[in-house]
Amino acid sequence: MNEFELINQLTASLPTNASLIQGAGDDCAVLDLGVPEKFLLFKTDAVVEGIHFAAETPPEKIGHKALARCLSDIAAMAGTPAAALITLALPRKFDAAHVEKIYSGINALARRYNVAIAGGETTTNPERILISVALLGTVPRNECILRSGAGVGDALFVTGELGGSLAGKHLQFEPRIAEARWLAEHFSIHAMIDLSDGLAGDLRHVLRASHVGAELLASAIPISRSAKIASKAETATKTPLLAALTDGEDFELLFAVASCDAVPLLDAWKKEFPKLKLSCIGKIIAGEGVSIRDKSGTHPLEAHGYVHFQ
Amino acid sequence: MNEFELINQLTASLPTNASLIQGAGDDCAVLDLGVPEKFLLFKTDAVVEGIHFAAETPPEKIGHKALARCLSDIAAMAGTPAAALITLALPRKFDAAHVEKIYSGINALARRYNVAIAGGETTTNPERILISVALLGTVPRNECILRSGAGVGDALFVTGELGGSLAGKHLQFEPRIAEARWLAEHFSIHAMIDLSDGLAGDLRHVLRASHVGAELLASAIPISRSAKIASKAETATKTPLLAALTDGEDFELLFAVASCDAVPLLDAWKKEFPKLKLSCIGKIIAGEGVSIRDKSGTHPLEAHGYVHFQ
Repeated sequence: MNEFELINQLTASLPTNASLIQGAGDDCAVLDLGVPEKFLLFKTDAVVEGIHFAAETPPEKIGHKALARCLSDIAAMAGTPAAALITLALPRKFDAAHVEKIYSGINALARRYNVAIAGGETTTNPERILISVALLGTVPRNECILRSGAGVGDALFVTGELGGSLAGKHLQFEPRIAEARWLAEHFSIHAMIDLSDGLAGDLRHVLRASHVGAELLASAIPISRSAKIASKAETATKTPLLAALTDGEDFELLFAVASCDAVPLLDAWKKEFPKLKLSCIGKIIAGEGVSIRDKSGTHPLEAHGYVHFQ
Repeated sequence: MNEFELINQLTASLPTNASLIQGAGDDCAVLDLGVPEKFLLFKTDAVVEGIHFAAETPPEKIGHKALARCLSDIAAMAGTPAAALITLALPRKFDAAHVEKIYSGINALARRYNVAIAGGETTTNPERILISVALLGTVPRNECILRSGAGVGDALFVTGELGGSLAGKHLQFEPRIAEARWLAEHFSIHAMIDLSDGLAGDLRHVLRASHVGAELLASAIPISRSAKIASKAETATKTPLLAALTDGEDFELLFAVASCDAVPLLDAWKKEFPKLKLSCIGKIIAGEGVSIRDKSGTHPLEAHGYVHFQ
């Protein structure tokens, strides 16, 4: 059983109550706890030594990544982060200076986004470091963007460039909080997700939640320089395009808007965020699954994203 | 460096913002995110295989314990729980039926306390299962009970019986949510904590936060039957009293009230919760640290609670 099969089974009949607006199955849980005109966003995400970072990864970058992943999920709902709790599971003999540097990475990023580190806990995990971050944020009720609102005919956009994240970006990416807030304030964004498992995997989450399919244009997919460089290595197993579709940990935003908004959005984006690329990579179609169009025609996309336990 | 020295160092200068009422150093973080007349309570707590439960522990009890520990912390602030996220870190080859039973334990307890399981995540921890629970709750602003309000002369109370939790209670305890809400609604509770590290350790957390000391009456400390039984084993290293002071994982409430409230509170408690013992175990005094009075006089208490990494 892989990660997604397990999750499907576990989330089939979870306890709920009147406060739960959106439970398992989106980037964050959405709660109504009575904040006037706002929903709460609630998210946890863990990074594990040997899986999400290496023993020799600079500790400040480990801390940055641990918090930035959660911030990226708040961005995917167009939210504003407020406060985080840090769970640090450590081997019995740990290096205190190393742990403090992990915290420095967390704290520096938290300060930039005005996130309070409200506490947390330390516990024992004998073989490796595990850091779990729990994050609370808020979003205006009428601006909360779920995965489930994509409609047939919508244009699909992605920020930044994809693939090759392992070369460094996965440890120092910038969560797209400001960009997502701007999108929600200025356009009617129908669906949004952050790219953690890779475009080919995460797009399918949006499609399943929205009960639609998608057609991608191969030449429009923005491929990062590091994906292109990696593809030239003797040991390379992926073309640059496949890397952009499946490498994962891009932490860019993928979103759907009505096709009539596509050109105005692109124009306004260029003025607002001149340094960050925005690409229209395809469209939402009826049906299910993903197809991709290249010079030779339109084919079903077989590639999927990263899956734990497979 | 042990757990508490590390925590002191890490929490010395954490990022904060206007929403943070109480950060690291209490049972839960307390946030003001604009809910009228209420604060939010925010807590995470993790259980780790081989540390907090054994590989052979019945999985429903693992799930129960994982959520109940967080609920106990919400109780310690007199809060009402609302929604939880579950982080499940699993070895690559996991037993799906085992994981489902862990969730059954979580879900059964969540339903009893009207807690929504709002999602979470699964990730990889190759050597052992780790479950981290993040919990959100609410509390009326004027009823939120911190650790820091104990005053000289206050009476100290503890619910239930202490010690010997490893014999079974640590896997099936009932969080004292209803009792704590009743206390906050009917009396002015000056300080409260839940007993996770043991009375001798957790009382010191209250004393340090309140800048006071305490004197315990040895004969008044309620000792559990399992602590008494354990003390008779050939391998026993603790007297029943020492077990009650230091075993930990009692998950009972320790609280301080003005001495003039002590008798009315005990009387009202007996009517409201006839099945749950409430004991006045001592008093708050000026100074610092804990002393204990027995037949031979009053002595400084040397015993401390459970500490990770020592």
